[in-house]
Amino acid sequence: MTDQPHYELYYWPSIQGRGEFVRLVLEEAEAPYLDVARLPEPSGGVKAMMKLLRDDGGGLAPFAPPFLRSGSLVISQTANILAYLGPRHNLAPAGEAGRLHAQQLQLTIADLVSEAHDTHHPIASGLYYEDQRAEAKRRAASFVHERLPKFLTYFERALSHGKAEHLVGSSLSYVDLSMFQTLSGLHYAFPRAMAHLAPAIPQLLALSDRIAGRSRIKAYLASERRLPFSEMDLFRHYPELDQ
Amino acid sequence: MTDQPHYELYYWPSIQGRGEFVRLVLEEAEAPYLDVARLPEPSGGVKAMMKLLRDDGGGLAPFAPPFLRSGSLVISQTANILAYLGPRHNLAPAGEAGRLHAQQLQLTIADLVSEAHDTHHPIASGLYYEDQRAEAKRRAASFVHERLPKFLTYFERALSHGKAEHLVGSSLSYVDLSMFQTLSGLHYAFPRAMAHLAPAIPQLLALSDRIAGRSRIKAYLASERRLPFSEMDLFRHYPELDQ
Repeated sequence: MTDQPHYELYYWPSIQGRGEFVRLVLEEAEAPYLDVARLPEPSGGVKAMMKLLRDDGGGLAPFAPPFLRSGSLVISQTANILAYLGPRHNLAPAGEAGRLHAQQLQLTIADLVSEAHDTHHPIASGLYYEDQRAEAKRRAASFVHERLPKFLTYFERALSHGKAEHLVGSSLSYVDLSMFQTLSGLHYAFPRAMAHLAPAIPQLLALSDRIAGRSRIKAYLASERRLPFSEMDLFRHYPELDQ
Repeated sequence: MTDQPHYELYYWPSIQGRGEFVRLVLEEAEAPYLDVARLPEPSGGVKAMMKLLRDDGGGLAPFAPPFLRSGSLVISQTANILAYLGPRHNLAPAGEAGRLHAQQLQLTIADLVSEAHDTHHPIASGLYYEDQRAEAKRRAASFVHERLPKFLTYFERALSHGKAEHLVGSSLSYVDLSMFQTLSGLHYAFPRAMAHLAPAIPQLLALSDRIAGRSRIKAYLASERRLPFSEMDLFRHYPELDQ
């Protein structure tokens, strides 16, 4: 490592999950960071992450990963981490109105992501998918037919306003990066539903393509730092849930 | 009304729901506000709220209630509204570290509240409880036995650190008010589970009592502005889910 200050990201080492929203911002910003749980023990690894989670750190311990260490700060909750990083790396609107709007969109993305997760875990995150398969099928049907179109056409409207280049403000923000990640995950998990929805969300899909084509994001996606999608992750492809 | 500037809160007129977290902050702050959907048509009522939701307002329309109008701003997502109101009414920590910590706790409260909601609606919010009763029973068991204790003992630890007077910082914040509301809702919905948990969360329960005893909150709770809990709301008491 160089001697410039760096961030420490703490997240599960084998999945994209919610940590990926933070990784994408750090990669686009070219911010130096350590993905701590993916480093070797004893300074890295899941053990190092669990130690910080259990340590009450002045009553400031996170409830769950991801969390980010920046100097003496330990910041958790994905949207909160992005609200911290965005303005520091020119990835958030400059004014108060824009920042509030960015957080509003980010928190709505977080709601969509949680609902996508709950399609395969509608009963308990502590149980296997196989133990809640019947319930998952019912929940996924409601997600695919009602919730997913409602969320995505909402974001399409937000994007279609004005110049349609960015979800908020006049330049790239963490919200655009999060939308890219969300659409990527939805395409992986629900290819049929997304193909069906495509004609209704042309601007969102074009935004996602633009993000994927940005030089730093493109390099990141091609690197080993980008973990593959899988059925251990937040977005899972179970064909029976994509009807 | 006086001629001082006032806020406009938009939320469903017959439930506490997520709007209540905003109402409590406005009441404690003695901030002048209109609870628009509870006012008579045509300037108030649900119709006035739906108009703003459909109006794309420069691409800034909220996804769902609650939302707050403050001057030219329309702010949505509960935690985002509180992050806006807190510093304006001396109900948030002064420094950046404290504000990040407050949002982290608030977003974790929001996660708990969503999981409490999903105990009675594990399949689809668009369906009646009666249409997802079997699944609700399974989800509620996991909530009561695993998730609820995990969340509440986490908050108890956060509160027990230091002087144990407030969840964050050295004076009352929107996080304390939200914790009061959450505990009130949980007591209503899960009286058995909460009685069982009580010995593990003495500081949280004492905090909740202190909030309920504050003069403005006490007056609010006794007023007609405070809506009753009900089985149309976020927190619902179904004895079969409280085992």
